[in-house]
Amino acid sequence: MKRYAIGLDYGTNSCRSVIINADNGEEIASHVFSYPQGLLGVLVDEKDHNVAKQSPKDYLEGLESIIVNGVAKAKEADADFSVDRIVGIGVDTTGSTPMPVDSEGTPLVLLPEFENNINANAWLWKDHTSFKEAEEITELAKQMRPEFLAKCGGTYSPEWFWGKVLRCKRIAPEVFAKAYSFVELCDYIPAVLAGIKNPKEIKRSVCAAGHKAMYSDTWGGLPDKEFLSALDPELAELRDRLYEKAYPSNVVAGELCEEWAEKLGLPSGITISVGAFDAHMGAVGAGIKEGTLVKILGTSSCDMMVMNLQTDLPDIPGVCGIVKESILPEYYGIEAGQSAVGDIFLWFVNNLVPDSYGKTQTDKFIKLDSMIAEMAPGETGLLALDWNNGNRTILVDPLLSGMLIGQTLYTKPQEIYRALIEATAFGALTIIKRIEEYGVPIKEVINSGGLAIKSPILMQIYSDITNRPMKIAASEQTCAVGAAIFSLVAAGSDKGGYATMDEAVDAISGVRDVIYNPIPENVEKYKKLYSLYMDVHDAFGTKEWSGNLAHVMKELISLKK
Amino acid sequence: MKRYAIGLDYGTNSCRSVIINADNGEEIASHVFSYPQGLLGVLVDEKDHNVAKQSPKDYLEGLESIIVNGVAKAKEADADFSVDRIVGIGVDTTGSTPMPVDSEGTPLVLLPEFENNINANAWLWKDHTSFKEAEEITELAKQMRPEFLAKCGGTYSPEWFWGKVLRCKRIAPEVFAKAYSFVELCDYIPAVLAGIKNPKEIKRSVCAAGHKAMYSDTWGGLPDKEFLSALDPELAELRDRLYEKAYPSNVVAGELCEEWAEKLGLPSGITISVGAFDAHMGAVGAGIKEGTLVKILGTSSCDMMVMNLQTDLPDIPGVCGIVKESILPEYYGIEAGQSAVGDIFLWFVNNLVPDSYGKTQTDKFIKLDSMIAEMAPGETGLLALDWNNGNRTILVDPLLSGMLIGQTLYTKPQEIYRALIEATAFGALTIIKRIEEYGVPIKEVINSGGLAIKSPILMQIYSDITNRPMKIAASEQTCAVGAAIFSLVAAGSDKGGYATMDEAVDAISGVRDVIYNPIPENVEKYKKLYSLYMDVHDAFGTKEWSGNLAHVMKELISLKK
Repeated sequence: MKRYAIGLDYGTNSCRSVIINADNGEEIASHVFSYPQGLLGVLVDEKDHNVAKQSPKDYLEGLESIIVNGVAKAKEADADFSVDRIVGIGVDTTGSTPMPVDSEGTPLVLLPEFENNINANAWLWKDHTSFKEAEEITELAKQMRPEFLAKCGGTYSPEWFWGKVLRCKRIAPEVFAKAYSFVELCDYIPAVLAGIKNPKEIKRSVCAAGHKAMYSDTWGGLPDKEFLSALDPELAELRDRLYEKAYPSNVVAGELCEEWAEKLGLPSGITISVGAFDAHMGAVGAGIKEGTLVKILGTSSCDMMVMNLQTDLPDIPGVCGIVKESILPEYYGIEAGQSAVGDIFLWFVNNLVPDSYGKTQTDKFIKLDSMIAEMAPGETGLLALDWNNGNRTILVDPLLSGMLIGQTLYTKPQEIYRALIEATAFGALTIIKRIEEYGVPIKEVINSGGLAIKSPILMQIYSDITNRPMKIAASEQTCAVGAAIFSLVAAGSDKGGYATMDEAVDAISGVRDVIYNPIPENVEKYKKLYSLYMDVHDAFGTKEWSGNLAHVMKELISLKK
Repeated sequence: MKRYAIGLDYGTNSCRSVIINADNGEEIASHVFSYPQGLLGVLVDEKDHNVAKQSPKDYLEGLESIIVNGVAKAKEADADFSVDRIVGIGVDTTGSTPMPVDSEGTPLVLLPEFENNINANAWLWKDHTSFKEAEEITELAKQMRPEFLAKCGGTYSPEWFWGKVLRCKRIAPEVFAKAYSFVELCDYIPAVLAGIKNPKEIKRSVCAAGHKAMYSDTWGGLPDKEFLSALDPELAELRDRLYEKAYPSNVVAGELCEEWAEKLGLPSGITISVGAFDAHMGAVGAGIKEGTLVKILGTSSCDMMVMNLQTDLPDIPGVCGIVKESILPEYYGIEAGQSAVGDIFLWFVNNLVPDSYGKTQTDKFIKLDSMIAEMAPGETGLLALDWNNGNRTILVDPLLSGMLIGQTLYTKPQEIYRALIEATAFGALTIIKRIEEYGVPIKEVINSGGLAIKSPILMQIYSDITNRPMKIAASEQTCAVGAAIFSLVAAGSDKGGYATMDEAVDAISGVRDVIYNPIPENVEKYKKLYSLYMDVHDAFGTKEWSGNLAHVMKELISLKK
């Protein structure tokens, strides 16, 4: 008898469901819901580009829409499908995306008194308003608890939990005062489905806790009260209203509650697994294992690796996090990434590419991709930095910005587009080098996400610049598929799921036939360009660097010829 | 009885005539001819952005068109006008724009055997293909004749005469072998009008000779044969077929010959004055005097000053040239400038500004100007370098290129446009500082050229960044008006012209009522931005600089707030 699982994936601009056949991963149906509020679903502030909030109202409306519509489509697509064959529901989301909630688990912005308070919303991963708080946390940890920093690359990021919570207290004390607790989006959605109201009863994700909230078994969970008090005494008080323990996603978060079962037209009792971040679940959906780097290429990039818990793994400076079981149970999860990848291309195409390149955004991308496929490395004469949204790895500095060098009076949009793609590939190479330098060998690279599938030239450039074959995950929805895999393991074999992660991953994930291999002459040219990239990277990105950049423009001109 | 003069102005994309009333400078008529060949009149090579040639065929076709049509319009516009009241014709052109000619003065590309040879055309000022030859000349002069370099800012530019001639010999030996001589465009047009065929009989412009061909009375005219031989023995031989003496433009080049009088419908015998470069004549048309910096703002900028010959003027490193009588007789002419100003804005608007900003180029500029007028200094968060066409002053380095720093995911085209304008203003300030540093006081700035008239916000930004009032020349066509002024002085008072330059300039040139004054709070903000500009300027532009740029992006972000 066929069995099914549902993966729910909460992204930056929309959420989606994917319903898979639990035996082989076949994707039966999917439904996307675009968040109606804000700019493409993000509540922004024109005067402060660091602001990025999101409405819990959109999350709940989306939750109903993607399951109800996904199920309806599954019924049409597969005669064998029925709702009582759904074994589990797994959830992945962006993060760190914490939201203030009251003691009933209700997001504050859903209360009438806070409905117009932007800070009572979810603080989306890319909200960078807490950059000063993040610096403060870094400084304090350097003095008091250097071990906290060692696991998160040496610098606490403004994209993370504690900075956002502290910032919230400072700029919106009324919100902080009313907040019984703060809940990550990836913990909130499973709790809603399982009908868990009390924030202290929500099973929290070790992925979110470990990567973003300085949670570790080593020091007994969340940061101690002494440390939190030094930031703000009320943070120490908040600690009691958060959680003692966090869990990997093969653990059951709860069972589908009556209220939501009715709303969704599903039987109650379906296994809901513990949530995690999209990239971490995407890595599982893409088939991560030791030696495999999974790159999730979306608006930003997440670079994921695992190493078994027996390894004596050193701390890796500038890498976002090394967290026990954050990706796979029984393995360390290593997370790195770039703050913007697809977002840079979208920005460029939406703002600076004329209509003669295509009527729609998609047409423009197709045209640009075809134009740059004809170019050789260095031919543009351009060099860019991939920092339009700051640098997450290896500099961990949100107060960096984009750069383009080498433009003449003849530079064309397609040349800049190619330079931007190259910049993200140089950024990717910098991460690979840093990880390998610290003793984690990378034997294989599997790419996932829209960019990996849609742009063969992007993948070829990544292959040429990193000098490695680029493989592509079979599924277009690795995050949702990863979430579904976890729900099947959480349910266990008795309930029609799987007994182990290995079994489930083997059965469900895979890579495509097409592999992009490095072209030797391109590899050589890109070595020279990469050395220029690193000169500029270090000159603008580090205080330690000292030197001269008088060669950069001249070498770019000479590489052009 | 009313008298008239004609100024002919040969620009980068077109040539034009202006017919003025000789008493008061009133502009009676004007006609423009766009060069039909190449990209906007420039013969380019997509594979080498350094190539910029121009067709003498276009020059001659244009010569007939602009005079015949200008005269026809003058007849319509002014009942008093008649062709026998034309006192003189003056000519200004771009430069250094030398062309190879045979012993009859015919440009080689007009001979059937060379008609498809791109190197047999005029080598337009912005042709940068001779960058290696220019380096060679600089190196040789450093060793053999340091005095040659002292007068041209310490570095010989690839935009200049000898580099182009030497490059021609190397890449097109067949052209060089056939070339009896090389003639600057500003000498060629007067010679054509005066019917002078023999290149040795053409009265050459001291402006072109002095600024571009290392000509000076101090060392007996052109560089000596020993020096030229060290570059190439055939250059030494060529010296005999060039000229012994060069002249300022208040000197008569000849009289309108029968052949061209007939072609143009004018009486023969009209005074043709010696030609000069557009910017130098533009400075005169704008009313240059001691203490006045005239900025000609066009595709590039030319910054012109004069100092009387009694001054003990030092050499100014990085300034294009200090040449006796190149602007006004009895004065040193000082020339500096930026390799691209309007060209950068044109490049940006034509390539990277979406159609939603306007249907035509003009509409886009109007829209962008109105958008940036609302912004405060620093608000864009951006910093650009004005080097898309290299840097003429003060770095004298064509192998530099553009740069933009600070872009985020929210950066808009209008913000980049403002940053590009600011970059050109920072470049302008760098030139002003260098000139004053060497003892040439600047008491007044008069701007001329399309940009100065069309864009009030550009003039305001220039005023705020340089912290000086910006005045605007009365005429829209100062170059052509300057050429006409010279023809009136060359003709002399007996023939209905003027006895002295002072009299002619006083009668004909002037400034407008509107003056752009610096706004104190903007001045302060721009001081900070300028210091960042200079950090990046020196880091990328000089080998001497050593340091760190880690503060740049952070200060840009902080200035934005």
